[in-house]
Amino acid sequence: MAPSVLEAMQPYWATHFLLPGQEHPNAQAIGEAMEHAREGLALLAGCDPFEIVFTDGGTSANNLAILGQLQTQQPGHLLVSVLEHESVHAAAAHLGSKGWHIETFPCSVDGVIDPDHVASKMRDDTRLVCLQAANPVLGTIQPVRELADLCHRRGISLHCDATQMFGKLPVDVEQLRADTVSISGHKFYGPKGTGAVYVRRGLQLAPIQYGEPREMGLQSGAGNVPGYIGIGAAASLASRCSGDVADNLTEVRERLIEGLRAVVQPLPIALCEDAPRLPNTVAIEMPGEAKRLQRSARQLVMATARSNDPPDAITRVLRAIGRTDSQIGRTLCISLGWTTSRDQVDRSVEMLAEAWDGLAG
Amino acid sequence: MAPSVLEAMQPYWATHFLLPGQEHPNAQAIGEAMEHAREGLALLAGCDPFEIVFTDGGTSANNLAILGQLQTQQPGHLLVSVLEHESVHAAAAHLGSKGWHIETFPCSVDGVIDPDHVASKMRDDTRLVCLQAANPVLGTIQPVRELADLCHRRGISLHCDATQMFGKLPVDVEQLRADTVSISGHKFYGPKGTGAVYVRRGLQLAPIQYGEPREMGLQSGAGNVPGYIGIGAAASLASRCSGDVADNLTEVRERLIEGLRAVVQPLPIALCEDAPRLPNTVAIEMPGEAKRLQRSARQLVMATARSNDPPDAITRVLRAIGRTDSQIGRTLCISLGWTTSRDQVDRSVEMLAEAWDGLAG
Repeated sequence: MAPSVLEAMQPYWATHFLLPGQEHPNAQAIGEAMEHAREGLALLAGCDPFEIVFTDGGTSANNLAILGQLQTQQPGHLLVSVLEHESVHAAAAHLGSKGWHIETFPCSVDGVIDPDHVASKMRDDTRLVCLQAANPVLGTIQPVRELADLCHRRGISLHCDATQMFGKLPVDVEQLRADTVSISGHKFYGPKGTGAVYVRRGLQLAPIQYGEPREMGLQSGAGNVPGYIGIGAAASLASRCSGDVADNLTEVRERLIEGLRAVVQPLPIALCEDAPRLPNTVAIEMPGEAKRLQRSARQLVMATARSNDPPDAITRVLRAIGRTDSQIGRTLCISLGWTTSRDQVDRSVEMLAEAWDGLAG
Repeated sequence: MAPSVLEAMQPYWATHFLLPGQEHPNAQAIGEAMEHAREGLALLAGCDPFEIVFTDGGTSANNLAILGQLQTQQPGHLLVSVLEHESVHAAAAHLGSKGWHIETFPCSVDGVIDPDHVASKMRDDTRLVCLQAANPVLGTIQPVRELADLCHRRGISLHCDATQMFGKLPVDVEQLRADTVSISGHKFYGPKGTGAVYVRRGLQLAPIQYGEPREMGLQSGAGNVPGYIGIGAAASLASRCSGDVADNLTEVRERLIEGLRAVVQPLPIALCEDAPRLPNTVAIEMPGEAKRLQRSARQLVMATARSNDPPDAITRVLRAIGRTDSQIGRTLCISLGWTTSRDQVDRSVEMLAEAWDGLAG
């Protein structure tokens, strides 16, 4: 989390401790701070503040967008991309248990879905299509707008999980044309346990949790006021930064890949290199076992596949682009941050080179 | 929020920023800190750590306890006390829309429910009874254990919303004998947006939100790690303090009531004075309009009824003990904290006396 975000949240724990709805002059100021935070998110997403609903994270955002839209409807058909986050698949599976027909559509070996192929799957009872903005493992960017246009021609809604995109590339919900968009605070230096959903004006959603209503009836309870202030501050920060960070992130990412290729033989493969991708996320197929490299270079935070059966999130995504279990077992998933320096990348390459020497030797 | 709670959370925002499940030596330490927090809650509630599930607040806790238990069952009969929190009534109403039969049982004019009367309402298809530990408006303490015993004889579960009791009086879930118990962090100097449910070992619950599972499958997503650390720290603090604070709170509360009676005529009435009550919560019926007193004594944080139709939470509770709308319009709801001093109470009495003079004069 960014220090400035921590600073923005700080007064709302013990000093400004009232809740926005309470009857006290100070409570009003807290309500105003929350609306200011909502404006920060609206600016980041390119929408109106009243189209932003605070949630308790990206998973809550995906659940509210999908279940809040479909749970009150008669069961129908739901199309979900194979690359979606666990929470999208799990919310869809829950609807499946309630009589919905859930259909998964594939992606190419480059990790990108084909809008025309998805359109060919649409039925008269298709109610919603779920397509993420960018994949957390591969970084591949999806043609959300093209698919949204095809959906809307058929009167179908599109939900876009954009949690991986915010803070790395500019996101404009007007351009995406999605009906609901998920946002996760800790993906752009905001607090854990915070998120939001963009809900296009006019779209009807029902709450998925019940109580004293707030957030236009879509949420209830006291709520995580300091967290909302925090995600708002992080959004403002990201609005100022995410235009500029992309070039630097791309440079640093390429330095990492080139660095590894200079010291590791056979050459590491950066997956989906030909597809449009996030600047900060890369999956690299190494010539040796990824878990062992991870154990040797233990100072680095990297993700690797954990389980074939049931497949974990990484295995699922890598299988979707046609990688074998042996290739998946050799894949390191790496994310870079706004503050990752060339020096840090060079040291990471050294650590991985040492780890590889240990493995190969 | 207590400064020591803020201090405990602080390192988990930007320093220990990993998630417990990540592959890194530091991630394990974060998992351990979360388990330590869970132990803090278990100690406060008198249960085993594995019986504690973190939530995003008291409303989430009530939703998970009620919907998580009933949503996967065939519709049946649900008994809910008239005094319950909005989130309990709202979760019940949601089940009502799914074919459940929701029956509300009353309380006496002293604000206490009668277990035998509730038992007379139980049917063969009654699945759950909801009874709070203590009321947030009146402070009245309910005979949870007696009702739980009657429930269990009929094979019925009991859910107890104990959010108002923790931190004010010792709570022992073994003694309460409830099957699920809700906890809210900010009610005992923990962070807003945090809570927990005690789930009696062996009780089957289903998640109400879907994703990458954690918390024994009952929650999903990254989660509010600093918040969980915070509610754990607050629980440890409350375990150390809540035995000692009750006597002081009672004294300060009585000082407030006696103080008001010395300066306001006709005499203010402390509601439900003959019932067992929390030491810190009191509803006081004044001889003049509560909203006007509140506006005059604007430095004080007090709650008053806001709306007759639909009735807000305070109106609902006061009607349940037979107060008229005119009496309800004259009622101030006041809570005292661990740190409320005699001097603060005396100044509050002065402010209210001045406000009353303004009104009466």
